[in-house]
Amino acid sequence: MAHIDLGEDLPGLPSLLRFRPETAGPLSALAETLLRGPSPLERGERELIASYVSTLNECRFCAWSHGACAAAQLDGGMSLVEQVHADPATAPVSDKLRALLRIAAAVQRGGREVTGGDVAAARAAGATDVEIHDTVLIAAAFCMYNRYVDGLATFTPTDPQAYTRMAERLTTHGYGAPPSNPPQGAGTP
Amino acid sequence: MAHIDLGEDLPGLPSLLRFRPETAGPLSALAETLLRGPSPLERGERELIASYVSTLNECRFCAWSHGACAAAQLDGGMSLVEQVHADPATAPVSDKLRALLRIAAAVQRGGREVTGGDVAAARAAGATDVEIHDTVLIAAAFCMYNRYVDGLATFTPTDPQAYTRMAERLTTHGYGAPPSNPPQGAGTP
Repeated sequence: MAHIDLGEDLPGLPSLLRFRPETAGPLSALAETLLRGPSPLERGERELIASYVSTLNECRFCAWSHGACAAAQLDGGMSLVEQVHADPATAPVSDKLRALLRIAAAVQRGGREVTGGDVAAARAAGATDVEIHDTVLIAAAFCMYNRYVDGLATFTPTDPQAYTRMAERLTTHGYGAPPSNPPQGAGTP
Repeated sequence: MAHIDLGEDLPGLPSLLRFRPETAGPLSALAETLLRGPSPLERGERELIASYVSTLNECRFCAWSHGACAAAQLDGGMSLVEQVHADPATAPVSDKLRALLRIAAAVQRGGREVTGGDVAAARAAGATDVEIHDTVLIAAAFCMYNRYVDGLATFTPTDPQAYTRMAERLTTHGYGAPPSNPPQGAGTP
């Protein structure tokens, strides 16, 4: 049960966006901009960074929902997502994405953990300033979303289909507006 | 030196807001809503939670800038801020704020660190659902801002006057719009 009264019909972040509409606006706009706005990183790559950081923070709701969004938008599908979550060092991703995932893991441990060597390695693999920036901010933002979702002990569905449906909705309609109704199939109204 | 080319005339978060105006909007709007928007917590209390979490994350730019904002808006001034940063358990704050700071410290370690006991203690000291929510989200958000500022190795001024001037500007004009010009006295244009 959640630490505060969030109702019982919405899971994870959506339950929090409904509880506090004042902060829902900027939080939704940030997710939309980071994960779907203009960026040299593909949308699937950005969702993969988000879900990977969420696994490191042990936030199942965010790891499963953004993992499903990554799987829906990357050629390797869920198999690739699971390999990255298990070990980016051996997963079949580009050298550039591998170097960016290493930076994301450093950010998850703490901002001061990112070394000049991490950044130089990403640059050597072809990463630009904007790609390095976006990786750091996505990783940092999921250190927020993960703590928000778990710090208030929101509901985490365990049916994988719930996340597939969320990903269909998010990859089609985006994160732009906070939900005013329960997502399809997430529970009874 | 910063990990990416941020120029040399702006410090900390402002240098990042200028670098990536697309994300600056939501990030500024989130800070404005969290720290200055409608909330049962006073603005000074919210800045104190933000600066305390920043000290736990060892992010000097955020700790010093939001510490100065807290000092400017709390009766105890910088002396109170320094006592809270050193040890909230013995600082002269209300039992409610002490319990909320304990929740903030748990969030800083990780979302799953917040216990039912932490929340029950805050409730027993008079905290409402919205106060508990806002505390968790402020703490989570500064786990993002801190990692963003330090993960890209932005410039941290060491002159305390720079932070006093930032606090004067922020407590007067707010966080609403990303800066298009260097803050007064932060460097040469």
